[in-house]
Amino acid sequence: MKHHKDMVTKEEIQAFFDAQFKGSNLMIEQVENQYALLRRVVTQQDLRPGGTVSGPFMMTLADAALYAAIFGTLGIEEMAVTTNLNMSFLQKPKAEAALTAECTLLKVGKTSVVGDVVIRSEGESAPVAHAVGTFALPKN
Amino acid sequence: MKHHKDMVTKEEIQAFFDAQFKGSNLMIEQVENQYALLRRVVTQQDLRPGGTVSGPFMMTLADAALYAAIFGTLGIEEMAVTTNLNMSFLQKPKAEAALTAECTLLKVGKTSVVGDVVIRSEGESAPVAHAVGTFALPKN
Amino acid sequence: MKHHKDMVTKEEIQAFFDAQFKGSNLMIEQVENQYALLRRVVTQQDLRPGGTVSGPFMMTLADAALYAAIFGTLGIEEMAVTTNLNMSFLQKPKAEAALTAECTLLKVGKTSVVGDVVIRSEGESAPVAHAVGTFALPKN
Amino acid sequence: MKHHKDMVTKEEIQAFFDAQFKGSNLMIEQVENQYALLRRVVTQQDLRPGGTVSGPFMMTLADAALYAAIFGTLGIEEMAVTTNLNMSFLQKPKAEAALTAECTLLKVGKTSVVGDVVIRSEGESAPVAHAVGTFALPKN
Repeated sequence: MKHHKDMVTKEEIQAFFDAQFKGSNLMIEQVENQYALLRRVVTQQDLRPGGTVSGPFMMTLADAALYAAIFGTLGIEEMAVTTNLNMSFLQKPKAEAALTAECTLLKVGKTSVVGDVVIRSEGESAPVAHAVGTFALPKN
Repeated sequence: MKHHKDMVTKEEIQAFFDAQFKGSNLMIEQVENQYALLRRVVTQQDLRPGGTVSGPFMMTLADAALYAAIFGTLGIEEMAVTTNLNMSFLQKPKAEAALTAECTLLKVGKTSVVGDVVIRSEGESAPVAHAVGTFALPKN
Repeated sequence: MKHHKDMVTKEEIQAFFDAQFKGSNLMIEQVENQYALLRRVVTQQDLRPGGTVSGPFMMTLADAALYAAIFGTLGIEEMAVTTNLNMSFLQKPKAEAALTAECTLLKVGKTSVVGDVVIRSEGESAPVAHAVGTFALPKN
Repeated sequence: MKHHKDMVTKEEIQAFFDAQFKGSNLMIEQVENQYALLRRVVTQQDLRPGGTVSGPFMMTLADAALYAAIFGTLGIEEMAVTTNLNMSFLQKPKAEAALTAECTLLKVGKTSVVGDVVIRSEGESAPVAHAVGTFALPKN
């Protein structure tokens, strides 16, 4: 299993996200080897009929959490690309609460990374969504 | 297999989408029983490092294509919600081209619908992404 | 979240498995509310070219772990059926070792259950496969 | 997109399957570039409570259909391995009928192949299950 040679800080990843995903409200709360915790504020425009947070909003968050966990493990690999994302929507998130996404990497290979993401309404223990994602790593 | 009693037109679904997903550029090109074809223009802000169309942009398109195909089959079921979406990203879309999403429903049950979506760069035959999605239907 | 009214023991679930899945070598090691741990011995006929444990062997194990965790939560719901199973194969399992499958339920709803399964070569910490599965529950 | 240099016949793939998957009843009906059609007889031991064909039985069939379509495209790549398989079970297959699996490859890359599989009860048009699978190709 790979380990990062050069520690990347939470602040560096946040700066990268702020530049790349402008206006996305993706906050890096914690990053470690093979792990990331993100937080995303939910605004009125992210809601769907019935007051539900939109699926794509949660998919964006899951994808970002995987990306951040890869950065925390391998450094800023900006050319890592998602090849598969499987999202399960479990229950309606609270409309008024921010969402958190906790990503754990299951495999860090030479050419691909697989990770697991649990999304929760902030302050709740039961997950609202779950994702498994695969990223392809650029050849070095 | 269910069939729609009241034909919903492409224009009615477009009007619903325009109201619900403001500024999303989701165009309904064709809708039939168990089928929908959507088109989405790609703008500069939808691109990622390396000129790639972002994953979430394609997931939004896939999700919308499923939603439209459900509407074409059952009428405007706005409370239908995604329970699972499995996205495979196959190749880098052309940055300058619009994307199309062709959805075929595989199952139309009483409580759930499953469909298949193929996303292409407009004018190309090889798919750039593929999705399988499940929606839960509200109890009537 | 549902809780089981009538405790089902590990032995009762084992007896059900032995009757239903004859010769499958599926051992129930532990069952709790929303949790199950299974073990499956790998035999020569379960191997593929290159000494790899076959994919279907691990899928059967993942599916069984979900089934057992549902039984541990709701009692023996033999009519629960898999509606979706997403398997990620992470690394080659050790050919000579038994496999374990640890299932945690993410959602226990009225009509469906979603769970997560981690498969490992016995005695190893890194997962060899990961599954997310959805089961539909019979209407009572 | 890759094309096979050396045509592999249906009979050669059948011989490989008969040797590797003894007693599995996997019949290759048709193989072309990026396409395979398989047939599998259902026996009493493949059934589950309620007369349902077991999930793993269909997963084995889907996996084999992908493997055969890869062989039809690239020659007998026995070291190709499944990295992801997403199965959707759509409706109960007829207990007495054989199953067919029709696989179309969506992507044939240098290091991975992605394909789509539709499983039907023989003689029926509505699918009973759907799969999307990714295989990793060995480095040459």
